[in-house]
Amino acid sequence: MKVEDIETPALLVDLDAMEFNLQKMAAFFSGRSCKVRPHFKNHKAPALALKQLELGAIGITCATLREAEILVENGITSILIANEVVGEGKLRRLADLSKRASIVVAVDEASVIREMAAIQRNLQARTEVVIDINIGLDRCGVPSGEAAAALAKLASSEGLNVRGIMGYDGHLQSRSPSQERDELVCKGCKVLADSAALIESAGIPVSIVSTGGTGTYAISGQCPGITDIQAGSYLLMDTRYLDLGAPFRRSLTVLASVISKRDTGRAVIDCGVKAISSERGLPALKDISYAKLVALHAEHALIDIDPHSSPGIEVGTKLEVWVQYSDATVNLHSRMYGVRHGQVEDIFKIEH
Amino acid sequence: MKVEDIETPALLVDLDAMEFNLQKMAAFFSGRSCKVRPHFKNHKAPALALKQLELGAIGITCATLREAEILVENGITSILIANEVVGEGKLRRLADLSKRASIVVAVDEASVIREMAAIQRNLQARTEVVIDINIGLDRCGVPSGEAAAALAKLASSEGLNVRGIMGYDGHLQSRSPSQERDELVCKGCKVLADSAALIESAGIPVSIVSTGGTGTYAISGQCPGITDIQAGSYLLMDTRYLDLGAPFRRSLTVLASVISKRDTGRAVIDCGVKAISSERGLPALKDISYAKLVALHAEHALIDIDPHSSPGIEVGTKLEVWVQYSDATVNLHSRMYGVRHGQVEDIFKIEH
Repeated sequence: MKVEDIETPALLVDLDAMEFNLQKMAAFFSGRSCKVRPHFKNHKAPALALKQLELGAIGITCATLREAEILVENGITSILIANEVVGEGKLRRLADLSKRASIVVAVDEASVIREMAAIQRNLQARTEVVIDINIGLDRCGVPSGEAAAALAKLASSEGLNVRGIMGYDGHLQSRSPSQERDELVCKGCKVLADSAALIESAGIPVSIVSTGGTGTYAISGQCPGITDIQAGSYLLMDTRYLDLGAPFRRSLTVLASVISKRDTGRAVIDCGVKAISSERGLPALKDISYAKLVALHAEHALIDIDPHSSPGIEVGTKLEVWVQYSDATVNLHSRMYGVRHGQVEDIFKIEH
Repeated sequence: MKVEDIETPALLVDLDAMEFNLQKMAAFFSGRSCKVRPHFKNHKAPALALKQLELGAIGITCATLREAEILVENGITSILIANEVVGEGKLRRLADLSKRASIVVAVDEASVIREMAAIQRNLQARTEVVIDINIGLDRCGVPSGEAAAALAKLASSEGLNVRGIMGYDGHLQSRSPSQERDELVCKGCKVLADSAALIESAGIPVSIVSTGGTGTYAISGQCPGITDIQAGSYLLMDTRYLDLGAPFRRSLTVLASVISKRDTGRAVIDCGVKAISSERGLPALKDISYAKLVALHAEHALIDIDPHSSPGIEVGTKLEVWVQYSDATVNLHSRMYGVRHGQVEDIFKIEH
C-alpha cells in the first residue's frame, strides 16, 4: 500500500528514522554495564518493544498494570512498572501477572507494601519491587537515604522480593542541555547510588538502579551505580525532544487530508486534538514551508497558506504533521503505519 | 457495583445531572418548529444518542464518516455528518452507508461534489448533502449567498439530493453571553436563512438549515428559518461551557485513585492527559476544597493539599475530577460508568 492510500487521520512512523534511533540507542549502551530498559508508554506497540529487546534492551519499562498485562500477552517477560500500583483489584491482577513473568513494580508507601505482601501470600505469587525515590521531580517517591532504606527493609521483611530502586528525573528531561543540567543529572544518580548502598548495607541485594530518559540517557547512563535507563521517546521522537537537542530523528507524523480550502488562503485538515496532541504546543507541517498550522480544533486543524506561494495544497491533498508530544498522540490511535519511501511496509498495532 | 469499586482512571457520568440536561434541552424544543439534532462527537456513546432521540431529537449530528457508521450499526437511521468527507475510499464508504440510512453530508467544494456524484451513480446510492456555509468561524464552508447557491445548483445538477444548508458558529460558542453575542448569533442565522431562500428560489427545496451549539441554542433555536441545532456538549457538559453560563449541570468526571502522597502535602492521582484532556485548561477536583490539582503529566495529576486541612486524601482514596473539555476527554475512554447515589446503574460503551 502507498502512503497516499491510507485513510486519514493516521499515525505514520518513518522506518528509516525509527531504525536510526533504535541503532543509535543500542550503540550507546553496547559494551556498557548500564543498559536501556525502554519505556513502553511512549509507543504502546508490542512489536516495537520486541525490536528494542532484540537490540539489547534489558527489559521493558511501562507505566501501568494494563501495559504490563499487554506486554506479557505479547510474550515479554521482563517488565518494570515504573509507577505505583494501588488498590486491591489491581494488586490481585499484579500478583496473577507475577506468576507468568518477572514483574517489578515501584512502591513508595508502607500501607501498599503491606497489602501487596498479603495478597502475594494469599495468591502464592512472587512480587518484585523497587523503592521509588524522589530525586527532584516531586511526583511519586520517598525521600532518598534512610526513608528509602526503611521502606526496602519493610518490603523485604513482609516477604516481597526487593530488587532495588528507581528515581525518575522528569524535571531534567525537559531542560536544554547545559553543564548545570548535567551536574544535576549526576547529582540525582549519586543520590540513587548512595541509597542503593544503604539498602545493600542492610543486607538487601540491589540489582536495579533505574533512572533517566531520552533527554538525559547519555549522562545518567555513564554515572556509577546506574543499571538501566527508562528512555522511551527516543524511538519515535517528538518535536519537544528535538528542540532540546536529543540526537535522534523525528519519525512520527500524523497523515491528514485537506478537507476544505478557501480563496482566502485558509485550508482545513482532518487532524484535530482527537488525532494529535497539542498538550505541549501546536504541531507543525512536515516539509511544507509555504503553509502553517495555526490552530487545532477537536476534529480539524486550520492551515494558513502563504498567498504568494505556488499552489500545492488542494482539497484531497494528503500531508504530514510532525508530532509535538508523542506519548499523548500515540495514545489516540490504534495502529501505526510503518513507512519507507512512500510505501507501507508494516502496520504496528497499538494496544490499550 | 459501587463507585469505589471501579478501577481507575475511569469516566463517570452522574445520571441525575445528565437526565436533567436531557430534559432541559427537550423542554426547550418541545412545541417549536426548530429541533435539536444532538452532536454525537461529544459522547460517542450510541446508547446516549438513542436516549436523545427518544426525547424528541430530530436525528443525530456527527463529525466523521466513522461516527456515522457507528450510528448506523446501532440502528440510528437519520444522520447529519456536519463535516466534509473527502477521498475516494471514504466517498465509497459514504455511498455504501447511504443505502442503509439517511446520511446527509456537508459539502463545500465543487470537485468533491463531482466525485461524490460519480461514486453515487456507480454504486447506485442516494447521497444527501447540505451546503456548508462559513458564517464566521473561518474553518470549513463556502461564502453565503451566491457562492452557496451555485454549489447547491451544481450538486443538484450532478444528481445529489440537496437537503439544504448548514453553518456552524463555533466562534460564538466560546463567548460569554451578551447582547452583542446574541446579535451576532442572529446575524449568522439570518445569513443562513437568506442563503436558504436563494437556493429555494433556484427550485431546490430546503428542508435543513442547521446551526448552533450548546452555547447558543436558545438564541439560534428561536431565529426564523433555522430547522435544527447541532448542540452536543449540553448532555455531559464540561467546565468550559459552565463558565460560559450554559444552563446545564456538569455530569462528567474522571474517577482517579491517589497513588502516592508525601508529608510535604503533595499527592499524586492516576489521571494524566491520557485520561483527561487539558487542551482547554487544567481540570479541578470535585467536592474537595482543601486540595488543588496543579499539574497534569502523561499518567499522573499532581495535587497540592492545604497543610492546615484535616486529612482526607490518603493513598488509595478515590476522588473525582471535573472535565474541562468533554469532547477530547471522552475520546480517551472506551466506556462511561452511569452513576447514581454512589452506585453504577449503567455502563455506556464509547465507540471509536
